[in-house]
Amino acid sequence: MTDAVLEFPLKEKVRNYLRVEQLLRLMRSSARSQDPQLQFVFFEQLFVLLDLVERLDLRTDILKDLDVHEKSLVYWSQHPKIDSDALDQALKHLLAVRADLKSSTRFGIDLKDDKFLSGIRQRFAIPGGACAFDLPNLHYWLNLPADKRQHDFAGWLNSLKLLEDAVSLNMSFIRERGSFSRKTAENGFYQGAAEDKNELIRIKYQGDNNIYPTFSGNKYRYAIRFMRFVSDGDQSSATDADTPFSMAVC
Amino acid sequence: MTDAVLEFPLKEKVRNYLRVEQLLRLMRSSARSQDPQLQFVFFEQLFVLLDLVERLDLRTDILKDLDVHEKSLVYWSQHPKIDSDALDQALKHLLAVRADLKSSTRFGIDLKDDKFLSGIRQRFAIPGGACAFDLPNLHYWLNLPADKRQHDFAGWLNSLKLLEDAVSLNMSFIRERGSFSRKTAENGFYQGAAEDKNELIRIKYQGDNNIYPTFSGNKYRYAIRFMRFVSDGDQSSATDADTPFSMAVC
Repeated sequence: MTDAVLEFPLKEKVRNYLRVEQLLRLMRSSARSQDPQLQFVFFEQLFVLLDLVERLDLRTDILKDLDVHEKSLVYWSQHPKIDSDALDQALKHLLAVRADLKSSTRFGIDLKDDKFLSGIRQRFAIPGGACAFDLPNLHYWLNLPADKRQHDFAGWLNSLKLLEDAVSLNMSFIRERGSFSRKTAENGFYQGAAEDKNELIRIKYQGDNNIYPTFSGNKYRYAIRFMRFVSDGDQSSATDADTPFSMAVC
Repeated sequence: MTDAVLEFPLKEKVRNYLRVEQLLRLMRSSARSQDPQLQFVFFEQLFVLLDLVERLDLRTDILKDLDVHEKSLVYWSQHPKIDSDALDQALKHLLAVRADLKSSTRFGIDLKDDKFLSGIRQRFAIPGGACAFDLPNLHYWLNLPADKRQHDFAGWLNSLKLLEDAVSLNMSFIRERGSFSRKTAENGFYQGAAEDKNELIRIKYQGDNNIYPTFSGNKYRYAIRFMRFVSDGDQSSATDADTPFSMAVC
């Protein structure tokens, strides 16, 4: 049995953090790939990410969240049974990231000024505009020696390091707020009420059982409906079997 | 010295063939990758390709082109010095692909009916709509054992096999129409007039010289301007150095 974990945001800001995580993960995979075809994907994802960080004020959202996490760390530090070393370290890391955030401007601002990137970015905004013949400079870049390309990737990813660290730290605090407990979806259905502080539902389910969870909900209440997975042929449909799963409300 | 070849279409239909080639290449790279992050890219590219083949009548374009190629093969077969075995083989391949095309309906029609693909396709049309939490069924699929995923990729790619063969055959005939000859772009600039049958300009240039070609033109005339490549810092600008390159007008 293999477990799959799927996370559902209850709030818009958490939805954005999860998107940033996914985009950065794909960018890192793409940069690591030796295949220039797949390295092309890096740019596609980068420009989606830049659109996102320019449109949203993630920095303010994360700073507010870190304040909340700090308060809860201080609260726990007064608990007699807590491992105060680990807590101190977490607090130090939080304060360091917060200080960096406060002294920073918008995320990705360096990349916006990068002449090569801004030269190709506009073509990516046009559907089907990112062909080799539309982007001869990107074509040139993709033909450069691998170590030169890795050097550039490292530089661009480094410009997004603070964003990556801040989102990753913030999401780790959010994820640690809940722990998994076993549940059963009767007739494939489960519903619950969220408390005010809840921002993320994590569902661990059996990944090879032809059943997967779908989620609907908001910050007040949510429902999980398990569906049968059918890769070809029939439409997938809800299962009416009692389905065990684990859930963490964070 | 490493050479890079960059191709510029002179006609809209060739632009579309090149796009299809690029999309299919990236889909194959993505399916070959062991990283589920990068396999995600397969779907993104697939849906762009399906949009393209549903919007355009590539089948009719290719059939018309194959008729032209057939006539020119028959013409060459009367030439006394030609290798008639190779020619016969090319002609047989052409006739086989043409027969398949004639008996086929639209490209990708099987994939349009695939329930799993059509279930996730609509989310990909929404910018930022293809997150894990938006696509729990794709998330489930990406967590399946690698051999199951490979089996599905093979099936989907097989549904696009005729498109791939037809475009690849057609492009190989177009590419073979021209052969590379040495040119010099004086002061970094070269211009030429296209004949009626010309559809593609192929430019071979030195890939590690910090200079790349840009192209403008249409089916009557075209211009090639070499630019200095600057990855960070300055804006790239035209070079005024005499630049050697090779060109095939196809």
